[in-house]
Amino acid sequence: MGKITFMGAGSTVFAKNVLGDSLQTDSLREFEIALYDIDPQRLDESYKMICALNKNTNNNKAKITKFLGPDNRKDALRRANFVVNAIQVGLYEPCTVTDFEIPKKYGLRQTIADTLGIGGIFRTLRTIPVLADFARDMEEVCPDAWFLNYTNPMAMLSGFMQRYTGVKTVGLCHSVQGCTRGLLNSLGIKYTEPIKEKIAGINHMGWLLEVCDSDGTDLYPEIRKRACEVLEKEAFKGNKPKHWDLVRYEYIRRFGYYCTESSEHNAEYNNLFIKSKYPELIDRYNIPLDEYPRRCVGQIAGWAKMRDEFVNDSLTHQKTHEYASYIMNSITTDTTYKIGGNVLNKGLIDNLPKEACVEVFCLVDKNGVTPTIQGALPVQLAAMNMTNINVQLLTIEAAVTKKKEHIYQAAMLDPHTSG
Amino acid sequence: MGKITFMGAGSTVFAKNVLGDSLQTDSLREFEIALYDIDPQRLDESYKMICALNKNTNNNKAKITKFLGPDNRKDALRRANFVVNAIQVGLYEPCTVTDFEIPKKYGLRQTIADTLGIGGIFRTLRTIPVLADFARDMEEVCPDAWFLNYTNPMAMLSGFMQRYTGVKTVGLCHSVQGCTRGLLNSLGIKYTEPIKEKIAGINHMGWLLEVCDSDGTDLYPEIRKRACEVLEKEAFKGNKPKHWDLVRYEYIRRFGYYCTESSEHNAEYNNLFIKSKYPELIDRYNIPLDEYPRRCVGQIAGWAKMRDEFVNDSLTHQKTHEYASYIMNSITTDTTYKIGGNVLNKGLIDNLPKEACVEVFCLVDKNGVTPTIQGALPVQLAAMNMTNINVQLLTIEAAVTKKKEHIYQAAMLDPHTSG
Amino acid sequence: MGKITFMGAGSTVFAKNVLGDSLQTDSLREFEIALYDIDPQRLDESYKMICALNKNTNNNKAKITKFLGPDNRKDALRRANFVVNAIQVGLYEPCTVTDFEIPKKYGLRQTIADTLGIGGIFRTLRTIPVLADFARDMEEVCPDAWFLNYTNPMAMLSGFMQRYTGVKTVGLCHSVQGCTRGLLNSLGIKYTEPIKEKIAGINHMGWLLEVCDSDGTDLYPEIRKRACEVLEKEAFKGNKPKHWDLVRYEYIRRFGYYCTESSEHNAEYNNLFIKSKYPELIDRYNIPLDEYPRRCVGQIAGWAKMRDEFVNDSLTHQKTHEYASYIMNSITTDTTYKIGGNVLNKGLIDNLPKEACVEVFCLVDKNGVTPTIQGALPVQLAAMNMTNINVQLLTIEAAVTKKKEHIYQAAMLDPHTSG
Amino acid sequence: MGKITFMGAGSTVFAKNVLGDSLQTDSLREFEIALYDIDPQRLDESYKMICALNKNTNNNKAKITKFLGPDNRKDALRRANFVVNAIQVGLYEPCTVTDFEIPKKYGLRQTIADTLGIGGIFRTLRTIPVLADFARDMEEVCPDAWFLNYTNPMAMLSGFMQRYTGVKTVGLCHSVQGCTRGLLNSLGIKYTEPIKEKIAGINHMGWLLEVCDSDGTDLYPEIRKRACEVLEKEAFKGNKPKHWDLVRYEYIRRFGYYCTESSEHNAEYNNLFIKSKYPELIDRYNIPLDEYPRRCVGQIAGWAKMRDEFVNDSLTHQKTHEYASYIMNSITTDTTYKIGGNVLNKGLIDNLPKEACVEVFCLVDKNGVTPTIQGALPVQLAAMNMTNINVQLLTIEAAVTKKKEHIYQAAMLDPHTSG
Repeated sequence: MGKITFMGAGSTVFAKNVLGDSLQTDSLREFEIALYDIDPQRLDESYKMICALNKNTNNNKAKITKFLGPDNRKDALRRANFVVNAIQVGLYEPCTVTDFEIPKKYGLRQTIADTLGIGGIFRTLRTIPVLADFARDMEEVCPDAWFLNYTNPMAMLSGFMQRYTGVKTVGLCHSVQGCTRGLLNSLGIKYTEPIKEKIAGINHMGWLLEVCDSDGTDLYPEIRKRACEVLEKEAFKGNKPKHWDLVRYEYIRRFGYYCTESSEHNAEYNNLFIKSKYPELIDRYNIPLDEYPRRCVGQIAGWAKMRDEFVNDSLTHQKTHEYASYIMNSITTDTTYKIGGNVLNKGLIDNLPKEACVEVFCLVDKNGVTPTIQGALPVQLAAMNMTNINVQLLTIEAAVTKKKEHIYQAAMLDPHTSG
Repeated sequence: MGKITFMGAGSTVFAKNVLGDSLQTDSLREFEIALYDIDPQRLDESYKMICALNKNTNNNKAKITKFLGPDNRKDALRRANFVVNAIQVGLYEPCTVTDFEIPKKYGLRQTIADTLGIGGIFRTLRTIPVLADFARDMEEVCPDAWFLNYTNPMAMLSGFMQRYTGVKTVGLCHSVQGCTRGLLNSLGIKYTEPIKEKIAGINHMGWLLEVCDSDGTDLYPEIRKRACEVLEKEAFKGNKPKHWDLVRYEYIRRFGYYCTESSEHNAEYNNLFIKSKYPELIDRYNIPLDEYPRRCVGQIAGWAKMRDEFVNDSLTHQKTHEYASYIMNSITTDTTYKIGGNVLNKGLIDNLPKEACVEVFCLVDKNGVTPTIQGALPVQLAAMNMTNINVQLLTIEAAVTKKKEHIYQAAMLDPHTSG
Repeated sequence: MGKITFMGAGSTVFAKNVLGDSLQTDSLREFEIALYDIDPQRLDESYKMICALNKNTNNNKAKITKFLGPDNRKDALRRANFVVNAIQVGLYEPCTVTDFEIPKKYGLRQTIADTLGIGGIFRTLRTIPVLADFARDMEEVCPDAWFLNYTNPMAMLSGFMQRYTGVKTVGLCHSVQGCTRGLLNSLGIKYTEPIKEKIAGINHMGWLLEVCDSDGTDLYPEIRKRACEVLEKEAFKGNKPKHWDLVRYEYIRRFGYYCTESSEHNAEYNNLFIKSKYPELIDRYNIPLDEYPRRCVGQIAGWAKMRDEFVNDSLTHQKTHEYASYIMNSITTDTTYKIGGNVLNKGLIDNLPKEACVEVFCLVDKNGVTPTIQGALPVQLAAMNMTNINVQLLTIEAAVTKKKEHIYQAAMLDPHTSG
Repeated sequence: MGKITFMGAGSTVFAKNVLGDSLQTDSLREFEIALYDIDPQRLDESYKMICALNKNTNNNKAKITKFLGPDNRKDALRRANFVVNAIQVGLYEPCTVTDFEIPKKYGLRQTIADTLGIGGIFRTLRTIPVLADFARDMEEVCPDAWFLNYTNPMAMLSGFMQRYTGVKTVGLCHSVQGCTRGLLNSLGIKYTEPIKEKIAGINHMGWLLEVCDSDGTDLYPEIRKRACEVLEKEAFKGNKPKHWDLVRYEYIRRFGYYCTESSEHNAEYNNLFIKSKYPELIDRYNIPLDEYPRRCVGQIAGWAKMRDEFVNDSLTHQKTHEYASYIMNSITTDTTYKIGGNVLNKGLIDNLPKEACVEVFCLVDKNGVTPTIQGALPVQLAAMNMTNINVQLLTIEAAVTKKKEHIYQAAMLDPHTSG
């Protein structure tokens, strides 16, 4: 039987989603599930949770094991078929706090700071050394395993693994799946499957290149019209409460296309919205500064209450839309499955650098995750991606060469930081 | 509702497979099915056959139409969603006969002659002008349709369409689907799904790069051992009757890998087996010279009898494994499906030319057929493919530029012809 | 005998340099020199000047002709071997004035505005249609001629010609030749030939990648040390008068490398120096805002006086270092010559887009201008170039598609404009 | 002062050419010249010869040293600026003899056998291990030196060095320089400089793609006409004595283009001329079977006599056209120079594999040898090159992986061997 190792198993909620899904996937029911974390309490809580799910939803068919800290890491990984990564190095305290507070001292405001910018750069710099350790262990004890990376910054961490280790890595995110449906719903356009959607770009800035309804009618003319109407009404007329997706609508208006990650994220991936020179844009585009730490505080506070619910012998689970269990099933059973995955470009998107980590549709089957080829992006979309890729490549360069100057360069090239 | 146009509908048996499948595919049941041919009798026979199937297996839900000859071709194609191509220009007489008999006068023996060599070159030269006419019509009356090409020579005809027309084209062949199962069966190795198989290369010479059983055990060591034993016994000891697959077993022994199309085909794709200097190889490797015309004569003779069976009001149909109906369903319903398709290389296989038409796994969904990226082939396999691609590119060049010298060059570069 | 056509011959000073050089180049002495302009007075002045040079330095061996306005353009170009382009569409008035004044209304300050930014974008948009006309004529009346483009914005105009016309085009600039010598001189490091210098990038931001003295000693450590000392003294201590090259010294300090075009240019190719938020940087880095119009006013005023000197029957000429006459000689005589030329990337610089116009060393001989391959730039330098290439590709896209949205996109992607 | 190390200095005649040239090159006159060989007598003879030249043509300005055998190899190489390689592993006896005699037993006839085919494959296999030793030493004791390789098989040996060692390597051959002049002379067409010639392809099969006289008139129509006339008269009418260049004239007739290396070489690079089935072609195309061993025997016999002439205190030297001294001068003095060099393809020739070693024009200056980009070859020429590159890549693969099967594959893919 196979084995799934979950790195950062202390992320109880996310572990429940991915592993709860797995326990309800026939091909995976009898797998060993190895939980790894460096926090003994959180590890223990997750262990109890998964054991409860195994009992309640899987007749205890799976073997659940737990492994604490680097000394036991190789045992956790040994003979794994799949390694799911959801670690967060540095947590809310101290790292998320410093990611936000130190830049703020110098006048730099952020919203999420987990992808690009000062937050994204530092999150990468503190995470790559840990992933490099994981990779060394995996090359030794489970060289054929697939590494399903959920940890952000997605493009930088996955790109590091893909370029500098021998580990088969795909980066996974939730933002591709719901992109089209979310857009159409928010604009009041009926979403009917089968829908034709082409999405390609980079993580958190993957472009919805084409969207047609089931009859093949191009929906973009109507999308563009309605997005402009919303902008007109919401951004320029000053309604309250504000619409939540104005940054991406402005993308539609200015660049012609919608993208995968939310407006609060995309507000800080360019130098167009958060500008000390035009402070009124914050309000106009409804940009939630400091959004991520606010959420963290809420989640931490909530966990006290949620703990009882999760670490509970009668816990059950309803299958989610997370890619991981579907991918593991597909590779195990050779069932064809399609995902939006983060992979090394190597010419998939013709006008982005070969060494960039891009987000494209991939075919999953017994052969693993194989990316599909995309051609070129519209010039303006490649340009927007490039401003982000500049930062990504420089940050990876800094982490790999350990040359401090590349960190400064990453910051200077970051469109928002330097804007 | 959608529309499927079938070019060369007079190929009654093949039309029955593809269209019979379609009539039993829920998403396609109400499509219009337009039959096109230039032979009135064969067209009429196929029309009757499909009408019978529509009645007997589809409650007459589909609308069946027929179109005779170039004057009605645009009407056949107008508003089509899918165009299935199965034409054969020149038929057995006169063209297959001359493909074989004229080279034979000069001492050149062939087996199938539908892919490469003198037969493949001339088959391409007489077919491309017809496809160019189809393409011009399609660009006008159904510019978004997918062209599913089944006509050989697959790589040359699909490559022409992909490089020189605006028509979305994928080339389809049966040889990928059964490759692994056939090999294992013939060697007495148990075939158990899920199996891991990687196949990439060019049509009729797509390489089985990797094959592992459901536990992940590499089957190639055992395959190589057994193939060598068969060769030892059959090719060198001279048993009778001979094994049917010795050419490809010799590929395994010499190049390390099996390939998709049969030994009788592959005997004429290189200069290793049919050699005037070593006539004993014909017998040693059991190479059926003049196999294809023999088959044709048999099929033509058989058709007189089969006609009654096919053109028969009570005809029924059992769904086959042909890709076409699955592709059309997948594109129509946005269901993910995987095929081995023939597509323009553009970097998919790193060490074959960008303008070659290669056979790789493709993802099919509402976006159509999107190829997956493959990396580089082992050097010797790329080299074998290259000797074939040389001929393919030169033949296309001849057809497009109408320069006769390229025909001679194609023949001079053909490994068997010049061997 | 051959023919050189000079477009924008009314640029008397520059025409004197290039054509004066040609008249003193043995292989070109008997060429016809065709002057083209749309301004009759300036054309006539240049004609008189060149006639004087032909008499005084060339024994009247060349045939000098002049052609006024579009109606005579084809005659000017007919049978040309070389077309030197030095037109300026829109001149100082009205266009340079509006390039500066309109952005200034919105708070955007510029220095030169002939390469990137609002000035560069608009200069391109008004020039491409004229070059497109030239190209159409050339394709008809001198299809084999080389087009030596001196007009700015170099990368955008040359890139347009190279991608969208059939005219053999190389873009030429003075900034490569003097780069290393200028740097060493300004830092008090002895410049001794033979020097080893590698330069590659884009026009006006071509990177001095390597510089060694004649013994092979790497000069960069000393360069970096001294540049930092100057910065320390000049930028941070506030000496007056300020050093003229602080922006590029900051490039050395921050990105590790010097680049080809001057500090006053490079101040506006990024968002690091001219920042409304940090107005003190203008003074700190000694950035001459509005420098270009100031120079223009000076030149126009000076021309009244210079005219007498140039349009003078006893005019003579001393050969300059402009590339043009050397290139024309090299192509004419098959003498090997090396230039820094602006050419279509096509993989020359591995980590810049294929469709970018890059500045690399080229081999010149009878075959014309053939670029050399460069490999990859250091990540941070490619990143800096990319922020400029984004604007270049979008501006060309706007000019070619005539879609206004691409103009806005170019401005939004411009690092200084959006900064 | 610099240092030139000559590997295989026992090649007295060739050493005289390259080093005699160097001693007369101002920039190199004071270099140390280190001679290396494993044959003490030949090394000593060459040492005396070079000392004589140093005295007679260079006022003893150079320092001449000699190094015998692997134990002294690092000393020979230490601090070298340039390493000229002219070794021949295995010499005439035993290796050239076995290269010819063993294949002959199996009916395979060869002419030169130093480039491709059984001879070329084995020559590569016995030479690469020696070059790998050289490379390891060079990486240690002269990591910045340029390796100027003259040893055949050029494409395979240079390709190995370029792909698998860190040594800066260019492969050099005489066949590019005289190609055009030789062709025109032999056809009675006047050769007048400056001539425009484009040559690109692989070593010994570099294609003369374009040739125009000084007025720009395309000479190919006349070349093609005359080559066909010669073929008509010589090959088909059976004149005696036969013309010496009929194989390449047949290339012109059939493929449209001439190539760099001689007809006796090219006769064995394809399967068109030496065919057991058509033995009359040997005579028709005047193919000198066993030409190379014949020459070797002559040279060895001649050396007894020549030795006195070369190892002679009053020896002088007249400068030759060998590239080496020009390259060394150009790199030393930063003088621009153009060569046809053998370099890693990496996209220089668009339709040949990236890892092939191709022969293209290169720019030489202080930066060393930098290749120019070429675009795509005509399809038929790329195809001819590909059949050779297949063998080259497989032979290198065999040498690097030490897997015997790749040797068989190289032979099976060799167009002549398998023909």
